[in-house]
Amino acid sequence: MRIVQKYGGTSVGSVERIRKTAKIIQGELERGNQVAVVVSAMSGETNRLLALANEISESPTSRELDALVATGEQVSAALLAMELQNLGIKAYSFNGAQAGMKTDGRFVRARITDVKSDHLIEHLERFEVPVVTGFQGVDELGNITTLGRGGSDTSAVALAIAVKADVCDIYTDVDGIYTTDPRIVPKAQKMDQISFEEMLEFASLGAKVLQTRSVELAMRYNMPIHLRSSFDLVPGTMVTIEDEKMERATISGVAYNRDEAKITIMEIPDHPGIASNVFGPVAEAGINVDVIVQNVSEEGHTDITFTVPRSDYAPTMKIMAGLTEELGASNFKGDDTVAKVSVIGVGMRSHAGVAQKMFQVLATEGVNIQMITTSEIKITVVIEEKYVELAVRALHAAFGLDKESNTI
Amino acid sequence: MRIVQKYGGTSVGSVERIRKTAKIIQGELERGNQVAVVVSAMSGETNRLLALANEISESPTSRELDALVATGEQVSAALLAMELQNLGIKAYSFNGAQAGMKTDGRFVRARITDVKSDHLIEHLERFEVPVVTGFQGVDELGNITTLGRGGSDTSAVALAIAVKADVCDIYTDVDGIYTTDPRIVPKAQKMDQISFEEMLEFASLGAKVLQTRSVELAMRYNMPIHLRSSFDLVPGTMVTIEDEKMERATISGVAYNRDEAKITIMEIPDHPGIASNVFGPVAEAGINVDVIVQNVSEEGHTDITFTVPRSDYAPTMKIMAGLTEELGASNFKGDDTVAKVSVIGVGMRSHAGVAQKMFQVLATEGVNIQMITTSEIKITVVIEEKYVELAVRALHAAFGLDKESNTI
Repeated sequence: MRIVQKYGGTSVGSVERIRKTAKIIQGELERGNQVAVVVSAMSGETNRLLALANEISESPTSRELDALVATGEQVSAALLAMELQNLGIKAYSFNGAQAGMKTDGRFVRARITDVKSDHLIEHLERFEVPVVTGFQGVDELGNITTLGRGGSDTSAVALAIAVKADVCDIYTDVDGIYTTDPRIVPKAQKMDQISFEEMLEFASLGAKVLQTRSVELAMRYNMPIHLRSSFDLVPGTMVTIEDEKMERATISGVAYNRDEAKITIMEIPDHPGIASNVFGPVAEAGINVDVIVQNVSEEGHTDITFTVPRSDYAPTMKIMAGLTEELGASNFKGDDTVAKVSVIGVGMRSHAGVAQKMFQVLATEGVNIQMITTSEIKITVVIEEKYVELAVRALHAAFGLDKESNTI
Repeated sequence: MRIVQKYGGTSVGSVERIRKTAKIIQGELERGNQVAVVVSAMSGETNRLLALANEISESPTSRELDALVATGEQVSAALLAMELQNLGIKAYSFNGAQAGMKTDGRFVRARITDVKSDHLIEHLERFEVPVVTGFQGVDELGNITTLGRGGSDTSAVALAIAVKADVCDIYTDVDGIYTTDPRIVPKAQKMDQISFEEMLEFASLGAKVLQTRSVELAMRYNMPIHLRSSFDLVPGTMVTIEDEKMERATISGVAYNRDEAKITIMEIPDHPGIASNVFGPVAEAGINVDVIVQNVSEEGHTDITFTVPRSDYAPTMKIMAGLTEELGASNFKGDDTVAKVSVIGVGMRSHAGVAQKMFQVLATEGVNIQMITTSEIKITVVIEEKYVELAVRALHAAFGLDKESNTI
C-alpha cells in the first residue's frame, strides 16, 4: 500500500511526540507500505509567529503573514525527518515550494491548483519517506501562500491524490467520528465507516476533526480518508464513498452546533428581489448566513428569519437596524440563545418518515422547533439552546444509535 | 545610488530593533536611493533551532539542519517587510530560493554559485524594498542550503554584485574597523577606509566583523563594503580597492589573536615528504594549521614548529604523540599560552624596513619572538600570550597610529 499520513500540531508538538510519530511511520514501513508524511507546525508555533506579526503591525499584509507562518511547518518537517533518520529511515523534508504544491495567489486562504510531485513518487518507490509541510504552497509567481487554518488536511489529501496513494491517514487527537458528542451521550459510538457526503455534513455542522475542503477534495477524487488517533493505534473512522453496507442504518449520527444566532425581519413588503436586499448588505460585511426561512406572504408582506454565527450577531443586528426602515419592514428582532441540531445519514434516501420521526421525538420531549431546513441526507432544526442536550440524547436513542441498542 | 544593506541578528533581534532598522531604510529611500536589504535571523533564533535539532539527534543530517535553520531568516525578513509596510514603503520578503540565491550542494557550508535576481532589480527600480534572507540559498536540485556562520555578509555582497549596487552597507554593532583593539589601546582610531587586501588580513586574524568570504567576493568584483553601526548612523569604515590615499601610512593597524597554541616536533629525519607526513594526519582530523616554521636541517634532522587554534591543541598533541615514534623524531612539545600579533598595511609594499622596525620595537620591550611569518602586506609574530597588550600598545604607538600622533 502507498499511504499519505498527516500529523497535526500535537503529534509534532514536542521532541517526545515527534519520536512517537516517527515510530508510527516506522511501523507502517515495516508492514511493507510506502509512506509520505504531511505535517502541521508544532502546536503553539503558528500562534507564536502570529503574535510576533501582531506586535509589528495591527494589519500585516497577507503576503508577509504567509511567508512568516509557513516557517512553522518547515521546522516540524525538518525535525521529523531528522528523527526518522535516527531510526535508520531515509527521510527528506520538503516545504510547499519543494513539494510542488501549487496554489492560486490568494494569500492566507489559498487553494491548491496543482501538485507537481513526481519527484516524491521516486522517493516512495525506494521506500524513502518524504516529509512535506502542510498548510502551504507557492503561487505561480513563486510567492509563499497558506491555505488557512486546518489547511494541512487538504494538503495531505491533495498529496495523496497526486502520488496515487491508496489511502490518506489523518492522525489527530481523537480516534474517529462518533455518532454524536460523547460528552452529551456517553453511549455514542465510534463509526467504522462514513460516506464523504455524511462527513461533509458533520464537518459543516462544526465537527472540527476534518477541514471541509479536504473532504470535498477527497470525494471528488475518491481518495479514502482514514481518520485515526496518534495516541492509540486502533482503527479509526474510514471516510469513503457510500457503499451498500452503509444502507442499513437510517441515520448515521446526530450533530449539533451552539454557535448560532437567529434574526427575524418582520412584515417586509414582498416583491421580487427582497431577499437580495436583505442579504446583500450582510454578505458584504463578510457574514455567512446559514438557515433561511421565509414565511408565506400575507397581504403583500412577509417575514424573513435567518441564522448567523453567534459572533456575527451584533454586527448583523446593526445592519438590520439600518435596513428595517429602508426596506419598509415593520420591525426586526434577534435571539442569540438558539442552537442547531441535525440528524445525518445517507440511509435517509431509502427510508421514508425520518423527518416526521424527528419532529415527533422532539415534540414528545417538549422541544419547540423554531426553524427547519433539510438536505437529501440531513435534517436540521433550530431550537432554544437550553434544549440541546435533551434533543441530542432523545434523537440518538430514538434512531437506534445508543451502544446497547446496536449490540442487541 | 543603489544600495544593498545587510543587518545582523541584533538589528532584527526584537520588534523594537526591527522598527529602528526600518527607520534607517526609510531614511535611505528618502535620500532618493534604491535599497535592497539582506537580513540575518533574529539574534538567538539560530541557536534555538539548533538546540531543537540537537534534542532530536546528536548528529542530524546537514540537509535537514539547513532546512531547519533557514526558517530563522525567513521569519526576520517577513517581520521587517511588515514594518516597512507600516511606514508606507512597498516591501517584499524573499527567501533564498525566491531571491534566486543559487549555491552548490554542500549543506551547512554551501557557496553561492549564481544569483538570479532580475526580478529584484524591477522592485528596486520602482523604489520598492526587497528584503532577502541572508545565509541561505538553494542548490540545483532545489534543496535548501546554508552558507555557514556569518554567511549573511556573503549573501549581501553577492546580491549587491547581482543587482549592480553602488555599495554594500553592512550594518553591525560596531561602527567600523579600528587600527587595533580599543580595549587594549584607547588611542586606537576608526579607519575611514581600508583596502580589501588589508580587510582580508584583519578578518583572517580574528577581527570578527566581516566574514572572510564576503571580503574575497567583494574584492573580486570590486564591490565597496561600508561597514557601519546600526546604533549610530555616522560613517563607518569603507572597504574598497587600494587607492593612492592609502599609501601615506606605513601600516594600517595592529591585530592580535590569543586563540593560538604552538607545537614542535623535534629532530625528525629530514627527507622529502616529511611535512606531509606530519601535517597529513592533522588535516585529516579537520584541524587547521596556521603558522609553520621548519628549521634548517642539521645532520639530517630538522625541527618543525606550527600553530593551531587553541581548541585543537589537545587533539593535535595526541596526534603528535602517535607520530613521533612513527616518524623517528626524538620528541615533541607544546605550548598553549602563545598568541599572534600582526602589523598590517598595504603601505608596507612601498616602505622598507617595516619588519626590522617591528622586531626592534618588540626587542626594546623585552618581548621574545618565537615564530615569524610574513605576507606582502602583513608581518605576524608568535609571542608569549602575557606580552600581547604590551606588544600591541608598543607597535600601535611606534607606527604612528595613536590618535594624538595623527592629529599633529
